[in-house]
Amino acid sequence: MASDEALIQTTISSWEQVINRVGTLCLSCSEEQLLVEVAPGKNRISYLWGHLTAVNDAMFSVLRLGERLHPELDAVFIAQPDRSVPLPTSTEIAKCWEDVHTELLSRFKTLTSKEWLERHGNVSPEEFERNPTRNRLAVLLGRTNHASYHFGQMMLAKPKTP
Amino acid sequence: MASDEALIQTTISSWEQVINRVGTLCLSCSEEQLLVEVAPGKNRISYLWGHLTAVNDAMFSVLRLGERLHPELDAVFIAQPDRSVPLPTSTEIAKCWEDVHTELLSRFKTLTSKEWLERHGNVSPEEFERNPTRNRLAVLLGRTNHASYHFGQMMLAKPKTP
Repeated sequence: MASDEALIQTTISSWEQVINRVGTLCLSCSEEQLLVEVAPGKNRISYLWGHLTAVNDAMFSVLRLGERLHPELDAVFIAQPDRSVPLPTSTEIAKCWEDVHTELLSRFKTLTSKEWLERHGNVSPEEFERNPTRNRLAVLLGRTNHASYHFGQMMLAKPKTP
Repeated sequence: MASDEALIQTTISSWEQVINRVGTLCLSCSEEQLLVEVAPGKNRISYLWGHLTAVNDAMFSVLRLGERLHPELDAVFIAQPDRSVPLPTSTEIAKCWEDVHTELLSRFKTLTSKEWLERHGNVSPEEFERNPTRNRLAVLLGRTNHASYHFGQMMLAKPKTP
């Protein structure tokens, strides 16, 4: 395998690892456990799960990989902080989570390493000229870090295994 | 620039971004603020800062980049949970943090993309044969995610700016 392809494959594996950890944690929680706050007065696990789903769904547009699947999530999980509006059920969040991440992974696999190094959708051609690290790969890395960030918070409220 | 070099450069930028965020947060905290727990009964910011310093210092050996700089940190920040032994002062942690990350970054820049794809120090040649994504780059990505994970926790206890 060419080294650039191997580098991309390693980066996608790192993304999958973090996404699988979040999914496994959230799917193992009861409806009640999902409503525990990660720290007093902070977001509930359920909100963070939906928030990650919404932010990652927006990757379709940022990466110029087509239409996003669940734009309706933004009103609840991005535009508003937790406890502003009623959250969807965990079954609904789980379905969106699964849809978004299955489809993202299959689209990621269609990009060549050259395409990963192209400008991402939120940066102007002029800015990209000045800073070529503002490419699609940087978005993948940034979203992986973002998921890790909230996963660390969720783990503080993780239910004890009996 | 060849695409494999650009991929590595983007990945190192992502590492630097996370490390700079952690450093900026911790250096902006007073000694008292560093002793706030991220959630009731959980680690204090100071402990997490030292923990990240120790784990990242161990990257010198895992990446086969020479001797680590501060092996003495492990006794406090890895072998023991928070509140087991007295922590070093914030000045001491800050110095180790700075030493480790300045030196790591300068070593990272000496590796070629082919070298990033070589086996890391914690995997056997047989296991690496079966799974070639267990390379140096995977360690860099894993440690970036690990730092993001604890950064998300630290942010829960971040002092309010006046």
